[in-house]
Amino acid sequence: MNGLLTDLYELTMAAGYFECGKAGEKATFEVTIRRLPAHRNYAVVAGIPQVVDYLLNLSFTAEEIDYMRGLPQFAQVSAGFFDYLRDFRFTGDLFAVPEGTLLFAGEPALTIRAPIIEAQIPETYVLSTVTFQTLIASKAARCATAAASRPVVEFGTRRAHTPEAGTLGARAAYLGGCAGTSNTLAGFRYGIPVMGTAAHSWVMSFPCETDAFRKLQRVLGPATVHLLDTYDTLEGARRAASLGGPMWGVRLDSGDFDALSRQVRAILDKAGHTGAKIMVSGDLDEYRIRDLVASGAPIDSFGVGTELATSADAPHMSAIYKMVELEICGIKRFTAKFSPDKNSVPGAKQVFRDVARDVPRDVIARSGECGSGEALLRPIILGGRLVEPLPTLAQARDRAARSIADLPAALRQLEVAEPWPVIQSRELRALVGQTRSNLLP
Amino acid sequence: MNGLLTDLYELTMAAGYFECGKAGEKATFEVTIRRLPAHRNYAVVAGIPQVVDYLLNLSFTAEEIDYMRGLPQFAQVSAGFFDYLRDFRFTGDLFAVPEGTLLFAGEPALTIRAPIIEAQIPETYVLSTVTFQTLIASKAARCATAAASRPVVEFGTRRAHTPEAGTLGARAAYLGGCAGTSNTLAGFRYGIPVMGTAAHSWVMSFPCETDAFRKLQRVLGPATVHLLDTYDTLEGARRAASLGGPMWGVRLDSGDFDALSRQVRAILDKAGHTGAKIMVSGDLDEYRIRDLVASGAPIDSFGVGTELATSADAPHMSAIYKMVELEICGIKRFTAKFSPDKNSVPGAKQVFRDVARDVPRDVIARSGECGSGEALLRPIILGGRLVEPLPTLAQARDRAARSIADLPAALRQLEVAEPWPVIQSRELRALVGQTRSNLLP
Repeated sequence: MNGLLTDLYELTMAAGYFECGKAGEKATFEVTIRRLPAHRNYAVVAGIPQVVDYLLNLSFTAEEIDYMRGLPQFAQVSAGFFDYLRDFRFTGDLFAVPEGTLLFAGEPALTIRAPIIEAQIPETYVLSTVTFQTLIASKAARCATAAASRPVVEFGTRRAHTPEAGTLGARAAYLGGCAGTSNTLAGFRYGIPVMGTAAHSWVMSFPCETDAFRKLQRVLGPATVHLLDTYDTLEGARRAASLGGPMWGVRLDSGDFDALSRQVRAILDKAGHTGAKIMVSGDLDEYRIRDLVASGAPIDSFGVGTELATSADAPHMSAIYKMVELEICGIKRFTAKFSPDKNSVPGAKQVFRDVARDVPRDVIARSGECGSGEALLRPIILGGRLVEPLPTLAQARDRAARSIADLPAALRQLEVAEPWPVIQSRELRALVGQTRSNLLP
Repeated sequence: MNGLLTDLYELTMAAGYFECGKAGEKATFEVTIRRLPAHRNYAVVAGIPQVVDYLLNLSFTAEEIDYMRGLPQFAQVSAGFFDYLRDFRFTGDLFAVPEGTLLFAGEPALTIRAPIIEAQIPETYVLSTVTFQTLIASKAARCATAAASRPVVEFGTRRAHTPEAGTLGARAAYLGGCAGTSNTLAGFRYGIPVMGTAAHSWVMSFPCETDAFRKLQRVLGPATVHLLDTYDTLEGARRAASLGGPMWGVRLDSGDFDALSRQVRAILDKAGHTGAKIMVSGDLDEYRIRDLVASGAPIDSFGVGTELATSADAPHMSAIYKMVELEICGIKRFTAKFSPDKNSVPGAKQVFRDVARDVPRDVIARSGECGSGEALLRPIILGGRLVEPLPTLAQARDRAARSIADLPAALRQLEVAEPWPVIQSRELRALVGQTRSNLLP
């Protein structure tokens, strides 16, 4: 499955490794966060279960192999390579930080160690999976922080980059701190709380708004959320308030939320609906949420769509998948890219997060080194098999929440602050120096 | 299939319509481009085949229905609704502009007319599908324009919002004017030319760069593209040039492309490789491409990844799915949203593009009106059945290319220009006035 869901050069390199007799060489590749996404103080790692699923099911169908065979790039490649692909399975190792871990610039999120072809092919899928979900989880964490304990609900599938991205994004948003999602499939697949209100079309389908509200209550009972802005928000509020219960509350979807929420609150309270909640949605992001919270607007819940589902202010993240070691006949060679503006760091690594120090910090060390604090990279797949159950989504969400709560206050804020200290161990620095002097004249 | 891949409120509204005896009402919904994406003069519509596929296969599994039944929002909903979902199929109509059509702000891209529940549920999936692919096709068109006939290859799956978004994005990028993609699955699925070069890991896996280059040639022959910047681009160029053919050319992936491409060109030419091509990749977008072309840098081909695959400068687009008509027992009612900052226009529509006039323009008319020029919205699905084969991807790509070539020069440029004229017909304006006075006091 998904064998062709990769860049062509991964497959031509695979053919090359095969043809050059390198298929038995064991490579170690790392996904490293080169830079944090714009405006972010931390990244909430997400997407590891989808990487695991991918690696455990990676294969090629006969039709896919026939397709490759017909491409001009494979014209000189021997039949042996295509036979090899027929039985292709991932037999290597995956080490990764637990889902929900916070990472900072320069840190590895996962390591794949496998025969070089098996380690080369996953680059494209793994990068896309981890960076996208990490972007959404990180954005959700910011929205949740800004909302200061008021629930934030993810509403953005219609703006996501494909419906599938909306569903995986809903998962990541929940992991990052959202209270739920409007995406029903995400609820079904991942057990995330699903939430919904009413649509403009519902109101529009009735000749009169009051009738639309009344009928909604009959169907949804205490789950009723009246959408007020189809025609006029305050008039809508008066109509909703004029009805007896039950209702969860109302949603405002346009206009000046600060002013409107106060006016709507007054209308609801005056009619005795003091328990009815006010949700707002429409062009929200973490900054607008923060401002609304700061202004004291009586808003109980925020629905965030577009900005969250696309991580609109940082729609991509600089992460790389680079070979750091290559073992040929039992002899290890360390590898790195040393071009002027894009370097990589050689050698398999471990990250030690030491929060017990006066100044907490991370140390990026060589794998196998001793260090103090929590070793973040853990074995997930060994020899092509899952070695322990992955954390549940609830556990990952808890890990993210606890880690964010433990950050220094400045790093929890929306503005970019002095980075969390990340240093390289003495051994790792020595390895960088050696590798550079071996590779560059 | 995909029944749950929608916002929960579409499903609660569906239950509401059912419970209120409205299931037989026939609704018309429209996807309208409210505003063009930031910095864009036109949108290249893409994603219609995926909408067709969705509508023709939309259904609910027994497990999905059981899941819904267990949600608190459906606690008061009768068993009849869930029985209805068991046999749910889309039996309505889809009208859409042909894939590859250019649209402007305020114009409808597609119309769905169906029993109200069947028309309500698709909102989320349809919006996501059409807006995402349209964003990518539109961005690709700008990159292709900037490259002034040099091929632009889509390289961005690793940065896309999920691997599936990368694959559909590759399709949209090709449609918008890219020459091909690095995404192999997109080649397999959609018949798009696939292209690839070499990876840094290929070079890094050999003890010496010259050896890596030589072995690559042996495997790829005339498809060989040497990646020069693993250690030092110019040194890499000298090493590549020192080998005899065959090679397609080289790729630069970092550094100052203007200066480096000239130096590399000189090295290649001096060694007799005058036919070898130079491709550049790395943080490119339409503006950088334009500048490189304008500077006269000897670059033959551009690989564009991140910026294209995420439409990074405009990662979302304001498009809406709004009910415009509702037919109850044969009587038509026109519907619209008239809140202060988010309006919609009532009534099913047609768009006439008249390019034969002195000043070409679009007229948005009521469906059924006569108009001059091309009627853009055409029937695709009627009564739940595809009425004619969709255009091929090649035809859609041609349509986009011809339409862009026919635009006034200012609209083809990268900067925002005076918009293409779009007016509403007299009849449509009259309908807006009537509907407003019916709905608002």
